[in-house]
Amino acid sequence: MKRVLLAALTFTLALGFNALVMAQTSDPLPSWNDGKAKQSVIEFVSKVTTRASPDFVPPAERIATFDNDGTLWTEQPMYTQLAFALDRVKALASQHPEWNTTQPFKAVLDNDFDTLVALGEKGLVELVMATHTGMSTAEFEAIVKEWLGKARHPRFKRPYTELVYQPMLELLKYLRANGFKTYIVSGGGVEFMRPMTDSVYGIPPEQVIGSSIKTQYQMKDGTPVLIRLPQIDFIDDKTGKPVGINKFIGRRPIAAFGNSAGDREMLEWTGAGGGARLMMLVLHDDAGREYAYGPANGLPDTKFGTFPSTLMQEAGERGWVVISMEKDWKRVFVFER
Amino acid sequence: MKRVLLAALTFTLALGFNALVMAQTSDPLPSWNDGKAKQSVIEFVSKVTTRASPDFVPPAERIATFDNDGTLWTEQPMYTQLAFALDRVKALASQHPEWNTTQPFKAVLDNDFDTLVALGEKGLVELVMATHTGMSTAEFEAIVKEWLGKARHPRFKRPYTELVYQPMLELLKYLRANGFKTYIVSGGGVEFMRPMTDSVYGIPPEQVIGSSIKTQYQMKDGTPVLIRLPQIDFIDDKTGKPVGINKFIGRRPIAAFGNSAGDREMLEWTGAGGGARLMMLVLHDDAGREYAYGPANGLPDTKFGTFPSTLMQEAGERGWVVISMEKDWKRVFVFER
Repeated sequence: MKRVLLAALTFTLALGFNALVMAQTSDPLPSWNDGKAKQSVIEFVSKVTTRASPDFVPPAERIATFDNDGTLWTEQPMYTQLAFALDRVKALASQHPEWNTTQPFKAVLDNDFDTLVALGEKGLVELVMATHTGMSTAEFEAIVKEWLGKARHPRFKRPYTELVYQPMLELLKYLRANGFKTYIVSGGGVEFMRPMTDSVYGIPPEQVIGSSIKTQYQMKDGTPVLIRLPQIDFIDDKTGKPVGINKFIGRRPIAAFGNSAGDREMLEWTGAGGGARLMMLVLHDDAGREYAYGPANGLPDTKFGTFPSTLMQEAGERGWVVISMEKDWKRVFVFER
Repeated sequence: MKRVLLAALTFTLALGFNALVMAQTSDPLPSWNDGKAKQSVIEFVSKVTTRASPDFVPPAERIATFDNDGTLWTEQPMYTQLAFALDRVKALASQHPEWNTTQPFKAVLDNDFDTLVALGEKGLVELVMATHTGMSTAEFEAIVKEWLGKARHPRFKRPYTELVYQPMLELLKYLRANGFKTYIVSGGGVEFMRPMTDSVYGIPPEQVIGSSIKTQYQMKDGTPVLIRLPQIDFIDDKTGKPVGINKFIGRRPIAAFGNSAGDREMLEWTGAGGGARLMMLVLHDDAGREYAYGPANGLPDTKFGTFPSTLMQEAGERGWVVISMEKDWKRVFVFER
């Protein structure tokens, strides 16, 4: 028996050693070019997962939060959820003849994007209320899934769920392989994202935090439903991000990833905890493969996902790492694989 | 090498077999008497975890939700959080001379519980606002932890965190050992529960859903804080429970456990999904070891955690299993171990 035990032990150790060697030699982030961004990630993960390190963090506390629009998938020429809302207005227009003469609906039906943008946030909220509410949560989920299946991005002619950044998928996977729990913390609607986050990002619905509208519990013929009401419940953007993180997770992340002014407070909140922290911002500076916008670094400003120079300045002061899409990423989209 | 491999394989198989035999022969619920309640749990878990079963549920969808007050720990003679609020009023009274003459504070300082109860929900909300807000989330957490460390239950003379039901701890552990993710879904304040749920129940902060007040992000000397505002954000009770489950988890539980009228809608919502479901209600019918209240089954009514006869009737109609504390539980509290 002693010999059997020894053989088993040797075998097990050999397996473990092989796994270790493989983990050290194979690149967990193959779509990242060597440079400060990639190195920051690897060094941070090594520090917080090495038991002997003064920066070791127990697995339960390895929380990483990711913005969605512009951080995990593209947000140009407009937020995907806005494209969904516009398509829904067109689909529902025949039931709403009054929309032909009422803003913001008229602008949508006329494909008059400038007028729509000029109507500002109030107009967008009206669009969301008209297209995202008045049905049950189950009905809304079915509508979103159907749309995601057939809608195509105007430039890349692909489903929006393929306009996902391959380097960020690798980062999500790498963090999870190292015991991290990965969360989405997005200004987007939580029930717009949940139907796709598990299959696209490997992030289950309970790890998606987003903006929400109120729902009401109703009993219909003995079966309960949740009806989506035309009232905003929570806006998960800017100062709402740390508020949402505290409300939903109840712990402070040790790593946070964003790309715009809406992520500033999430990164501040993450960075204010003790011990090792990693905060990163994706800079869209790659007009050829994706889009280039800022206005930081002299890039043109945009209506969606603006990266102001004050954010660039704060990143420098607080040690946040800026990821240059052009320089740091070998590949951009998953479909380039 | 072949012999080494064979030896290793045999060893590994033997280990696996032993583990299997142990799992099958040791009782996962030793504090439960044999009977319908215990059997319902074992049969349900077996059905949803057996791959060949028509009721098999993938691990990611094995969500179980638990009420807290009266389901996991005692809620008599009053909710633990109310005892905390009363102690806080007394601790803060010297800074608020006006409380000596203003309700509901005067009733608290006079130990006049009848007047306090007569002031109703409005009085309770005022107490919560005066004692739970106006500080940062970190400060509130420290206050709760300090109180939990020193407060003692008036009858059992023990910390409230020991007035936890041993059979329910075994149930939580049993479900988790079978791939379930266990959540608390309670009318209690989420930030009152989170400081203790991990150490007491093995439930991490991100799996605690509760009532909440609004918080505001503020920058103080370059460091961000979340300040607790005197405004209610969400009441996680009655119809609020399915709303909260949808908001925080985004999936329907397959098992739900409660004990009072506040849990009715959570059990309805859980039961309305397809496939195997388990809904259970703890009936407090054990005045000797804990408390006996209803008014279902002719037990006396109570201000906290009422179990009306309409709930008993619905349980019968919908196949919810009622747990009799007196008959189904060998031991009640953890400290009886």
